[in-house]
Amino acid sequence: MSSNAIAQPMRRLRAGIVGGGRGAFIGSVHRIAAELDGEARVVAGAMSSDPRIARDSGADWHLERSYASYAEMAASEAADANGIDFVIIATPNDLHFPVARAFLEADIHVICDKPLALTVAEGDELMRVVESGAALFALTHVYTGYPAVRQARAMVRAGRLGELRLCTVEYTQDWLMEPLESRGNKQAAWRTDPARAGLGGCVADIGTHAANLLEYVSGRPIEAVCADLSSFVKGRRLDDDAHMLLRLAGGAKGTLLCSQIACGEENRLSLRLYGSQAGLEWHQEEPNTLLFKPAGRPWERLRTGHAYLEGAARAATRVPPGHPEGYLEAFANLYRDFMQDVRRVSLGQPPLRDYPGVHEGLRGLRFVAQAVASSRAGSSWQSV
Amino acid sequence: MSSNAIAQPMRRLRAGIVGGGRGAFIGSVHRIAAELDGEARVVAGAMSSDPRIARDSGADWHLERSYASYAEMAASEAADANGIDFVIIATPNDLHFPVARAFLEADIHVICDKPLALTVAEGDELMRVVESGAALFALTHVYTGYPAVRQARAMVRAGRLGELRLCTVEYTQDWLMEPLESRGNKQAAWRTDPARAGLGGCVADIGTHAANLLEYVSGRPIEAVCADLSSFVKGRRLDDDAHMLLRLAGGAKGTLLCSQIACGEENRLSLRLYGSQAGLEWHQEEPNTLLFKPAGRPWERLRTGHAYLEGAARAATRVPPGHPEGYLEAFANLYRDFMQDVRRVSLGQPPLRDYPGVHEGLRGLRFVAQAVASSRAGSSWQSV
Amino acid sequence: MSSNAIAQPMRRLRAGIVGGGRGAFIGSVHRIAAELDGEARVVAGAMSSDPRIARDSGADWHLERSYASYAEMAASEAADANGIDFVIIATPNDLHFPVARAFLEADIHVICDKPLALTVAEGDELMRVVESGAALFALTHVYTGYPAVRQARAMVRAGRLGELRLCTVEYTQDWLMEPLESRGNKQAAWRTDPARAGLGGCVADIGTHAANLLEYVSGRPIEAVCADLSSFVKGRRLDDDAHMLLRLAGGAKGTLLCSQIACGEENRLSLRLYGSQAGLEWHQEEPNTLLFKPAGRPWERLRTGHAYLEGAARAATRVPPGHPEGYLEAFANLYRDFMQDVRRVSLGQPPLRDYPGVHEGLRGLRFVAQAVASSRAGSSWQSV
Amino acid sequence: MSSNAIAQPMRRLRAGIVGGGRGAFIGSVHRIAAELDGEARVVAGAMSSDPRIARDSGADWHLERSYASYAEMAASEAADANGIDFVIIATPNDLHFPVARAFLEADIHVICDKPLALTVAEGDELMRVVESGAALFALTHVYTGYPAVRQARAMVRAGRLGELRLCTVEYTQDWLMEPLESRGNKQAAWRTDPARAGLGGCVADIGTHAANLLEYVSGRPIEAVCADLSSFVKGRRLDDDAHMLLRLAGGAKGTLLCSQIACGEENRLSLRLYGSQAGLEWHQEEPNTLLFKPAGRPWERLRTGHAYLEGAARAATRVPPGHPEGYLEAFANLYRDFMQDVRRVSLGQPPLRDYPGVHEGLRGLRFVAQAVASSRAGSSWQSV
Repeated sequence: MSSNAIAQPMRRLRAGIVGGGRGAFIGSVHRIAAELDGEARVVAGAMSSDPRIARDSGADWHLERSYASYAEMAASEAADANGIDFVIIATPNDLHFPVARAFLEADIHVICDKPLALTVAEGDELMRVVESGAALFALTHVYTGYPAVRQARAMVRAGRLGELRLCTVEYTQDWLMEPLESRGNKQAAWRTDPARAGLGGCVADIGTHAANLLEYVSGRPIEAVCADLSSFVKGRRLDDDAHMLLRLAGGAKGTLLCSQIACGEENRLSLRLYGSQAGLEWHQEEPNTLLFKPAGRPWERLRTGHAYLEGAARAATRVPPGHPEGYLEAFANLYRDFMQDVRRVSLGQPPLRDYPGVHEGLRGLRFVAQAVASSRAGSSWQSV
Repeated sequence: MSSNAIAQPMRRLRAGIVGGGRGAFIGSVHRIAAELDGEARVVAGAMSSDPRIARDSGADWHLERSYASYAEMAASEAADANGIDFVIIATPNDLHFPVARAFLEADIHVICDKPLALTVAEGDELMRVVESGAALFALTHVYTGYPAVRQARAMVRAGRLGELRLCTVEYTQDWLMEPLESRGNKQAAWRTDPARAGLGGCVADIGTHAANLLEYVSGRPIEAVCADLSSFVKGRRLDDDAHMLLRLAGGAKGTLLCSQIACGEENRLSLRLYGSQAGLEWHQEEPNTLLFKPAGRPWERLRTGHAYLEGAARAATRVPPGHPEGYLEAFANLYRDFMQDVRRVSLGQPPLRDYPGVHEGLRGLRFVAQAVASSRAGSSWQSV
Repeated sequence: MSSNAIAQPMRRLRAGIVGGGRGAFIGSVHRIAAELDGEARVVAGAMSSDPRIARDSGADWHLERSYASYAEMAASEAADANGIDFVIIATPNDLHFPVARAFLEADIHVICDKPLALTVAEGDELMRVVESGAALFALTHVYTGYPAVRQARAMVRAGRLGELRLCTVEYTQDWLMEPLESRGNKQAAWRTDPARAGLGGCVADIGTHAANLLEYVSGRPIEAVCADLSSFVKGRRLDDDAHMLLRLAGGAKGTLLCSQIACGEENRLSLRLYGSQAGLEWHQEEPNTLLFKPAGRPWERLRTGHAYLEGAARAATRVPPGHPEGYLEAFANLYRDFMQDVRRVSLGQPPLRDYPGVHEGLRGLRFVAQAVASSRAGSSWQSV
Repeated sequence: MSSNAIAQPMRRLRAGIVGGGRGAFIGSVHRIAAELDGEARVVAGAMSSDPRIARDSGADWHLERSYASYAEMAASEAADANGIDFVIIATPNDLHFPVARAFLEADIHVICDKPLALTVAEGDELMRVVESGAALFALTHVYTGYPAVRQARAMVRAGRLGELRLCTVEYTQDWLMEPLESRGNKQAAWRTDPARAGLGGCVADIGTHAANLLEYVSGRPIEAVCADLSSFVKGRRLDDDAHMLLRLAGGAKGTLLCSQIACGEENRLSLRLYGSQAGLEWHQEEPNTLLFKPAGRPWERLRTGHAYLEGAARAATRVPPGHPEGYLEAFANLYRDFMQDVRRVSLGQPPLRDYPGVHEGLRGLRFVAQAVASSRAGSSWQSV
């Protein structure tokens, strides 16, 4: 990380990005999220392994420094007193691990798309790198950035649900219901290629978001999974649909459904928890509403932006009630929390780490591995 | 069945009831449903094993003939030229089998609450009775009576979904989230008592409705189940919560969630199907709407009562669009179909049997048995 | 009314009907509603001015006595010791007044479709008839029969809204968006014919329901109306669309929108009230939910059937929460209240009159007259 | 505008801001919206008339140049070859006119909060300034920036609704239901002060948004208004609630409801249009959905981000379907369109002016004036 951070604590942070070049919608999402609150600017990048795309993407973004490789970028920025404060990793999955390691070892903070790595072994290795170094690591489980999700977590923590009994989480899409990977769609191609995506298809791409959201809100780790994975599209090598039973620490039971062939679904991520005293329900596609269901009383419809919310939820909103916020703002909330830690570290303060990190990333990798193992073993229970 | 049916084909049908006395809400539901279209009157009953309740309930209902026992009723009505055309069975589960057998053997048509019987063995026996006799048998899987459910089935049959890929069905309630069975609640007492309810608790009481609805709409039998059943309320002897993976004939995968301890849920029965060309979604708590999700097009919101619906759905509606219909009307639709068959048989015509019957009842018993077996065997797959 | 009511207080009531023959959907609605709870049977009728339709409709309904004219029916039933206890009037609007008068003067209780009469003058006359006689009179403003509407009224009465400030009520449909009256549709023909429908078209047919619902729930009479009526369909002689400003007793302001040419709307009757402490919202097309909006707190979603509701709402539900009830059940609730009064009167008890009657009918006629007058006078304010 | 724009067409634009200092939530909204796509940076400002707030706000925003007065800012930036390309006006209403004039006369493009000015006379004057100069003027009627709103407009333009018949638009809030203006709330204080807010309170603050949205989507100007304005909060000098009848060019009728005392409402802006062939419905609080209601067919639920949308709607979305976008993104869409014109002008191309401008601003001022006049004249019709 740059050496002058302490001298100018309130200056804007400088960010770099690896990946996210033209054609990858997630690149813009990262830039918008990082810059939304005016606290950082993306100034450097190695945006593609294709040099022309890398150069053009850098020009699109008005980058000050555009690199041909992430390794060069890590070395150069680390050596620059005015180099980047942190790097964004927005590449296909297979590069998450080497890129993250390169920047972490260069002492540059990292914020990385999920999954953490391709394999549990890589994930273990990355955890060692993170734990042995000073650089911060954040994983963009973006759905934890929604104010209503933070409200839900706060209510669970405060005991509003009583003893947790059952839960159901779902993440369904339909964008892979046709064999796009054989029709020139790059996003589909790497996501369905075991070499670039890892062991899991749908279960890794979106199932991990669902599992993370459940653990984030409930505060209970998934202890075991019993899964049935399918590849409905002919010729597809990874799963595009997965149905699971879950057991959580503390005795709660659950179901998890994820699918990328659920015709008509856009990005339907939904979570419900039921305890001995109340229930909670949240839908990502209507993210500003949280339903609270106290036993024997009418459901309450909590809405973001209100003074009646918990502090963590209030802090995650930028506009008054009734002014909808969405995916980009949730993403920006992750950045806000991560960048707050970047500033803290630069000031010699201990980081708060109140965002998904390498631990959550490793849990995600194990979740995928065990879901795949369970399915292969005829839906036997597997510990996570 | 009465001998003068043919002579007066358009006369009102005469119905009897066993069970459903004071305190059992389902009794009134049956009476309302049977009489709603003015085509039948409940005129006889053995409404309780408690003689006083039987007598008072009969008076409440203005019954012409009130019996102290179902056996006496079956014998007496069968011998009466103006006896009942059919009997309604609305007792606790353990009596379904003996009562149904008694009336079937007396050649009186039967419409019976689910489950069919306490055990698969009883169910097999009842199937033999039905198949060897002339009397009709209907099982009140009431949710198949909703017009939107019939529309969904018609659309699946017409191939509107393409190849079925995945499905998810849920039935959640919260009325058993406290140990009501130990607090004097009779409805809770028999439903949580293995001797009176059978092998399954929640899975039998409502899980069978969910399974039946899925099979009814999809036209695909559940071939195998992988289940995790729980009893969350201390001291409860039967399951009050069940999470399942499903495999359907033809290759579709699914999840089934049923629970009677899902705090805040009333009677949340929801079904979704996803095929290679479209999806469908229906919620019992907003029953007059069916969502259709064609690939690449906006969702369509079909509503009951419209001319654009299939004939089976249009026929199941009594009022114009926008005049909500509900549970009682769905129940009455089952009666209408059953009573149409009662008239057909009385006229010497073959019955249409377009309502759940002994076959569906037996499937339900097997579903419960195999879900329980799966759960006991560590969530292994069990064929249904 | 029959003379033996006191001797057999718990016998079923006997009802007659005028109008409602084949082709008129509202006839069946009345029969179902009157008979739903098993407390009455429709046994006599003069169901059409066309003798053949009258006879066939009577046979459809298994009537014991079918009359060729309402006058004959009133005379004959009044003279019969086992004659009807009350009559249902389900004719086109122009007959409401003469039929109601005939039965009231024969001392037979009347339950009549709205509007009360064709003109305010007729309405005044009918009020005199009612007030000078002993027979009861109910007007089927059916939407007041919904449990959630009764809950809303109870909450307003209990002061839960504070001082009422504004309200908005809407009733939109689309069934008259084409000139059905010139295409052989009888329902459309009489509703758009001033001689049979009266001064108002849409404003009378459905606007009065909206106005009545607002007054019923708010407890505040509409004091003045400022209206803009239109006939959008070419050649139509009565309004098919009306937009209004309202002023209520006590200072609240409001809007009322009614239309029968609102393309895509089925039967969208919605009411919202806003006070100094809370708001309320209800939609007829999802009738089992009532939204309560206390200042500075989350919205509460009240649902029918729950123990937390007021007594008046609880009493208007027949099934547990989550088992939807609809239009027919609401209609049956009106009948239940009316028939309770019929029994009370037969027992010499004072009637409770907790249902819309001649007073509400007269208010409706004045509302129509003043809305029409306002519109003709360039949307000037007119007192109601 | 700066002189080097043509030389570096792809450089980022430089923006300035007047107003929007600490405590004014709308300031950040403008900055986020202007910078969201990485095409502009806010570099200069006169953010408050209070010098300390101006200085601190400028530091918060990392401004390069902070001014004590807008006049000084206009002069200085106009004289600077690297000065701002455009200015954002985010002050209370009374300053819109003088600030806009100052920058326009300095040949700097302006994007200004609504209303255009305090009075119609000021608005007329500003129109003359705009029409006689070369600088662009945009008014932030932000709700026109939503993709679904643009889809609605495109569908109306394409004739999908047939002949427009009726419409209803509503904008309700509750944040002024208490006398905040006398409790130290600055936002409330200036909005309820005729000297700073103008003739209208609620009708100007949000009623104009509703009117603009209606005209934008329908393409039909409001020709006449019949209004009833109220001040429900004791001591309030401007209206806080308004109910109106509308007549649109071409014969459509409508209602408009706006209120800032509607207890429980956040920012409920809703629009419905009904034509001879179809209807449309949109709710700002669920902005990514547009309901289309073709005659005789099921409603269609159009969702943002889909390929089936019109080009104007597709272009206004940054993320795939199911990733909610909201208020900030809508605001950014206005900026994108405005900044595209800024670039066009800098390149010598004619501006497209596809955003609300001085014409819409003047219509808004007239709408307020005539609504106030109508209400004062006993709700007489007033031409707009």
